[in-house]
Amino acid sequence: MKHIGSALWPKLRVLQLYGSNTNVGKTIFANVLCKAFGRELAKVHYLKPVSTGPLNEADDRHIHLYNPDVQSRCLYQFDEPVSPHIAARGSKQAISDSSIQAAIHKELQAYANAGKDAIALVETAGGVLSPAPSGSSQADLYRPLRLPVLLLGDHQLGGISGTISAWESLHIRGYDVQSVALFEGERFENHSYLKEYFAERNVHTFAIHPPPERKANEEDDVRSMRSYYEEISRNSDVTGFTQSFLQSHDQRIRDLRDMPEQADEAIWHPFMQHRERSKNTIVAMDSAYGDFFQTYSKQQELQQKGDGASQPPILRPAFDGSASWWTQGLGHGNPQLALAAAHAAGRYGHVMFAGAIHQPALSLAQTLIRGLGNPRLKKVFYTDNGSTGIEVAIKMALRASSLRKQWSSDDDILILGFTNSYHGDTIGTMDCSEPSVFNTKVEWYRGRGHWFDFPRVKLVEGRWLVDVPPELSAELGEARHLDSLEQVFDYNHREADRKLYTDYFNKQISALQNQGKKFGALILEPVLLGAGGMLFADPLFQTCLVDAVRQNTGSHSGQARDDHDWQGMPVIFDEVFTGIYRLGRFSAASFLGVQPDIVVNAKLLTGGLIPLATTTASQAIFDAFLSDEKSDALLHGHSYTAHAVGCGVANESLSTMKQLESSGSWNSFRSDWQPQASIGAAGEDGVWSMWTNAFVTSVSQHPLVDHVFALGSVLAISLKDPKGSGYSSTAAVSLRDRLFAEMGGEDWVIHSRVLGNVLYLMAAVTTSPETIRGVQEKVLGNLR
Amino acid sequence: MKHIGSALWPKLRVLQLYGSNTNVGKTIFANVLCKAFGRELAKVHYLKPVSTGPLNEADDRHIHLYNPDVQSRCLYQFDEPVSPHIAARGSKQAISDSSIQAAIHKELQAYANAGKDAIALVETAGGVLSPAPSGSSQADLYRPLRLPVLLLGDHQLGGISGTISAWESLHIRGYDVQSVALFEGERFENHSYLKEYFAERNVHTFAIHPPPERKANEEDDVRSMRSYYEEISRNSDVTGFTQSFLQSHDQRIRDLRDMPEQADEAIWHPFMQHRERSKNTIVAMDSAYGDFFQTYSKQQELQQKGDGASQPPILRPAFDGSASWWTQGLGHGNPQLALAAAHAAGRYGHVMFAGAIHQPALSLAQTLIRGLGNPRLKKVFYTDNGSTGIEVAIKMALRASSLRKQWSSDDDILILGFTNSYHGDTIGTMDCSEPSVFNTKVEWYRGRGHWFDFPRVKLVEGRWLVDVPPELSAELGEARHLDSLEQVFDYNHREADRKLYTDYFNKQISALQNQGKKFGALILEPVLLGAGGMLFADPLFQTCLVDAVRQNTGSHSGQARDDHDWQGMPVIFDEVFTGIYRLGRFSAASFLGVQPDIVVNAKLLTGGLIPLATTTASQAIFDAFLSDEKSDALLHGHSYTAHAVGCGVANESLSTMKQLESSGSWNSFRSDWQPQASIGAAGEDGVWSMWTNAFVTSVSQHPLVDHVFALGSVLAISLKDPKGSGYSSTAAVSLRDRLFAEMGGEDWVIHSRVLGNVLYLMAAVTTSPETIRGVQEKVLGNLR
Repeated sequence: MKHIGSALWPKLRVLQLYGSNTNVGKTIFANVLCKAFGRELAKVHYLKPVSTGPLNEADDRHIHLYNPDVQSRCLYQFDEPVSPHIAARGSKQAISDSSIQAAIHKELQAYANAGKDAIALVETAGGVLSPAPSGSSQADLYRPLRLPVLLLGDHQLGGISGTISAWESLHIRGYDVQSVALFEGERFENHSYLKEYFAERNVHTFAIHPPPERKANEEDDVRSMRSYYEEISRNSDVTGFTQSFLQSHDQRIRDLRDMPEQADEAIWHPFMQHRERSKNTIVAMDSAYGDFFQTYSKQQELQQKGDGASQPPILRPAFDGSASWWTQGLGHGNPQLALAAAHAAGRYGHVMFAGAIHQPALSLAQTLIRGLGNPRLKKVFYTDNGSTGIEVAIKMALRASSLRKQWSSDDDILILGFTNSYHGDTIGTMDCSEPSVFNTKVEWYRGRGHWFDFPRVKLVEGRWLVDVPPELSAELGEARHLDSLEQVFDYNHREADRKLYTDYFNKQISALQNQGKKFGALILEPVLLGAGGMLFADPLFQTCLVDAVRQNTGSHSGQARDDHDWQGMPVIFDEVFTGIYRLGRFSAASFLGVQPDIVVNAKLLTGGLIPLATTTASQAIFDAFLSDEKSDALLHGHSYTAHAVGCGVANESLSTMKQLESSGSWNSFRSDWQPQASIGAAGEDGVWSMWTNAFVTSVSQHPLVDHVFALGSVLAISLKDPKGSGYSSTAAVSLRDRLFAEMGGEDWVIHSRVLGNVLYLMAAVTTSPETIRGVQEKVLGNLR
Repeated sequence: MKHIGSALWPKLRVLQLYGSNTNVGKTIFANVLCKAFGRELAKVHYLKPVSTGPLNEADDRHIHLYNPDVQSRCLYQFDEPVSPHIAARGSKQAISDSSIQAAIHKELQAYANAGKDAIALVETAGGVLSPAPSGSSQADLYRPLRLPVLLLGDHQLGGISGTISAWESLHIRGYDVQSVALFEGERFENHSYLKEYFAERNVHTFAIHPPPERKANEEDDVRSMRSYYEEISRNSDVTGFTQSFLQSHDQRIRDLRDMPEQADEAIWHPFMQHRERSKNTIVAMDSAYGDFFQTYSKQQELQQKGDGASQPPILRPAFDGSASWWTQGLGHGNPQLALAAAHAAGRYGHVMFAGAIHQPALSLAQTLIRGLGNPRLKKVFYTDNGSTGIEVAIKMALRASSLRKQWSSDDDILILGFTNSYHGDTIGTMDCSEPSVFNTKVEWYRGRGHWFDFPRVKLVEGRWLVDVPPELSAELGEARHLDSLEQVFDYNHREADRKLYTDYFNKQISALQNQGKKFGALILEPVLLGAGGMLFADPLFQTCLVDAVRQNTGSHSGQARDDHDWQGMPVIFDEVFTGIYRLGRFSAASFLGVQPDIVVNAKLLTGGLIPLATTTASQAIFDAFLSDEKSDALLHGHSYTAHAVGCGVANESLSTMKQLESSGSWNSFRSDWQPQASIGAAGEDGVWSMWTNAFVTSVSQHPLVDHVFALGSVLAISLKDPKGSGYSSTAAVSLRDRLFAEMGGEDWVIHSRVLGNVLYLMAAVTTSPETIRGVQEKVLGNLR
């Protein structure tokens, strides 16, 4: 699978010409620029990727006529003088965006390889959002290349509006519009208005005289145009532009090369030992699109040097293998999400949320309550990230418990949970996990809980296994094999395990109660424990703990008032990582088949764009805060609570994901994991992964691999480490580094993160089967 | 000062016609719709607010010809057939956007008052971003009215691009575009492409036959157009649109009326006792623009009923008096920030930040380090909100202290601070404050510190006062009067106070050290303590504490390595509320004239749009986390750390604010507070407020008022409460409620928040002197 990168080479400059309308003189400007750049550089290329209309009228012919030294090329030519998407219909084969992108990149790479100081002018068809052959827009078609743009403004009546709107359409798609250029208009002073308008936005604008009227005699016409081009291309506005463009190209490359060092100066990176960081290893992200970053690093550049015959591009596409810390859902640079963000910003900005309501926050709350499919859940509390969402959940649960059990404020109230859990970076959420490398050096950390170790699900040498830690095997027995991933979740056929697990928890809980310990909440990450090591917990074991705490209500406990009230202690599900389709389903709790009292969501909630978190609680939990005293209320609320931009983006994301689910977009993934017969039946409740069954099996059989698993978009590979596993292991680091350094036969690499000896990979819910296959091949190729 | 609201009445529908270009048939469509709506409703109005060109050609004449029953109006008519901004130049007086908005609103209100089932079609001039008379764009001019839009698409060559771009320009300005309509094109199939395109975006599109060719004979022409209008207006696409528009109008009103009740069902509000909340009091925010919310509440609607002669609009503009929880800086619905957000989303989405760098995050870090003007500060750590920013600061400071002082992990390490401080909602940040109403019912709260009470700055009966709490007066003396607010900060003339304060702290600190207490950090909110009661601390007292902890380094302490290293204990400034121009300066620390080791910023950082926080630290603090062990690193980092959208918006905001500062935009405010001679000299270091000196003085003299102060954009009025002040006081509630209920002679109210007996008001940095005056008049009018 080919993935093209942003087109940037040191000696080949590329400038894209976009029109804010048809008839704004794109080809005239192209000729002017060919002439002007021709005086500065050794070579000028003119590239019209897609052209419609009779061949002899085509733009590249016009270029050739007035600029015979310019090498002009058209990649796709249609005779019919209509929009490319209509012309393409008549053509033999479908022309995809990615094939056009690849053809352009290849063409540009050939120019770059010549090694001369050169420029390529890439001319688009029609206006900025005119349809491409595939039916998508020009601006979307060319976006992965992210070429610097000269936008040609419209000098005609109404052209001010069209020019600014066109600029906005490019701007919100992440383009750098270098300048705006247009013809001077005699009647309409568009150019003077636009100059001022864009100057305020740091975009330089220049205007040139329009070409002379067309002469009746063709020879006269050519002569008159020739002298027009000759004169205009020496105009100081034009040469001012060419100079500043050449400088900005060099500046962009300098900036990229300087960014790592400047970051090393000014940035304190998260989760990172800075002694391991240097200006050579910091990765500069020029931009990102779909599943790919466009990366520069010093190390990368040094690696690529040495082959005189080809000039590699400065930027390298890297698959976003950590899904940008588990957030990514709908692809980077997604114009749909950018528009949703801007719409909410334009409608509201941020509006204070205490005692108020706005449509995006209300819709999102209703969608969540519906989507979680848990009749207990009634009220949504907004915060900004998973940590604060968990802080709120803990405050909710502990208060409800304290009130019912009449504990005093001096009591040490604990939580129940699982070992290797991780609920966030704030000190209160850290207190929910047992002492570990993450918290032992946090001065105010005080682990306040009891944590159960648990059986893990693993694929080992081609067989699915529920592995029991040695310390538990006396009570839970040895590891058992299962026929398939689906069987892990088929609890009806695991009654013996259920009995064993339930007996175990009943015994454990009464022992803890006998010690006089007070537990105010059970908190767990359903199915996958993320930051604590990317571990696949036996979901039946988790289910049994929930059931056990609800049955062992303890001597102090009051009565639950109805079926939707909490019993024993409130149950919190931390679905920050596992919820919202990360594992293939909206609700991760659905895998366990139990109803938590509080659920926390974040990460994928906004499709991977901006921070937002929700803590959704039952009515019974909510009611614990009702009284006539203000001080009994949940006195929590960040300034940007329920910010409209976050809620607006989340609504757009959730509806897109729901649509992907219901339209069967994931069926090819599903059918790989689910027996043919049950695909329809399983529906939303299926167990499947975007990573192929065959690939996962093959990884599990590799001698370097201890075990592996895949679920939803998550893949985790545990490498054997003779020095022991855990966060401090470096067994996975060399694989990670190889994946980022080696391109194999293609022009892209994989950016990934490790957790100790585990290398994990995560896809967006929109990642294509082809890209997944490409990633899998690279992983298998680098497992050595 | 008049502030118009969104135009929404139950029986008067308003539909705005925008063109995606000129020559897309706006007036033709207007005629068709006049006819079609005329069959449904008792009255049709056609309003062309601004028209250019000879009178007899004007659009309203054309309407009159074919729809004699329609009442057509033009509010501003220019004879010259050019863009309104050029035509307006020739006109006698400048026509501001706000005067046009007010004229339209007044006109529409008159239609509504007639009480009939009616519609007003409001036609714009040119394209969506064509210049208005003031030079701003059509879409920006009309945005405060936020009328539902029918966008007229372009059927001509290139019209697909122009239509979609026009829709995007409206969408990012927060408009609801109800439908897109255009002429069917014979040659270009724009309509079929656009129908499909917009259907995917839930926007309905319809197309009609274009009008017949113009006849040579005028009578023939009129006859032919008449029959065209007659036929087309009965076309099912047209009637389908009119029906759905009428339904959507009713639905919008139903939704507004239902929203509070649905919010009461689904939402858990922040910082609120829900027993005080009901469907009658929850405020629905339809949108917001500039300084104003557009609000609906049941209570409001009930109040307005009863006057049969006029039909009040459903929405009421309310000044955002809490600056949306202290975040608001550059106005709601700011298109500049919306575009900045969308650009970053389009360029990156969110990209994983560990070990990576992108331009918006790097620029922001560099701008902050420069702007804070503190040579100690070298490294920026990103998080999502003030609470998490403080959590990070605490982790940083305590680790640095522990390492140097070789404390063990079992030691109880405390912080030093001031009483009534508030540093955030997460449990770790709550532990930084003394026990109070905010935290006593948080089960895991354990206050870990020692907190000093402090002298307060107040304006009492027209005189500035440094008031000393009774418990401190034995050591610090009685209250002292000062001549002006500026004198409070003139430490050179307060040497006696400095000596008194310093002696006090030296004694206190050595007493604490003698008790064996270990202090790992000093944390304070410079100048204003926000959530703890909106208190103005004597800044000299805060300065003296910083100096004292640095001089009393304690017996355990090691040596500072250089002038930029911390001494005694790391000093953290919580500038979440007070920083970034809230008090008129970029750095709040500059008021104290000391250099903290760690500064936390949030709120205004993004101009009031989305959550983002920074913790900026000294090199010495950073170096405490360097080692060969990964576990010694600061293992903190939220998923969306340094999200590109937040950083992009922050860069845009900070540059706009910097620009406002340097261009003298606040000079009229400054000159009111600073002696004429010193304005120039004081420059960025001045002490001033957006609230006028005369107003603040007058409030301070009101019998209900205990004291007041103003600084930067903050105003705090402490009301006398015989039952005592503090968070549980309700003394300010009735003033708050009156400000929200009573419009006075104008059509707007004030939405504000109280903290116990304190009513505070806060402006954006862009709020105009006129609006400030309007708010002040309302406050004085309602102080009773």
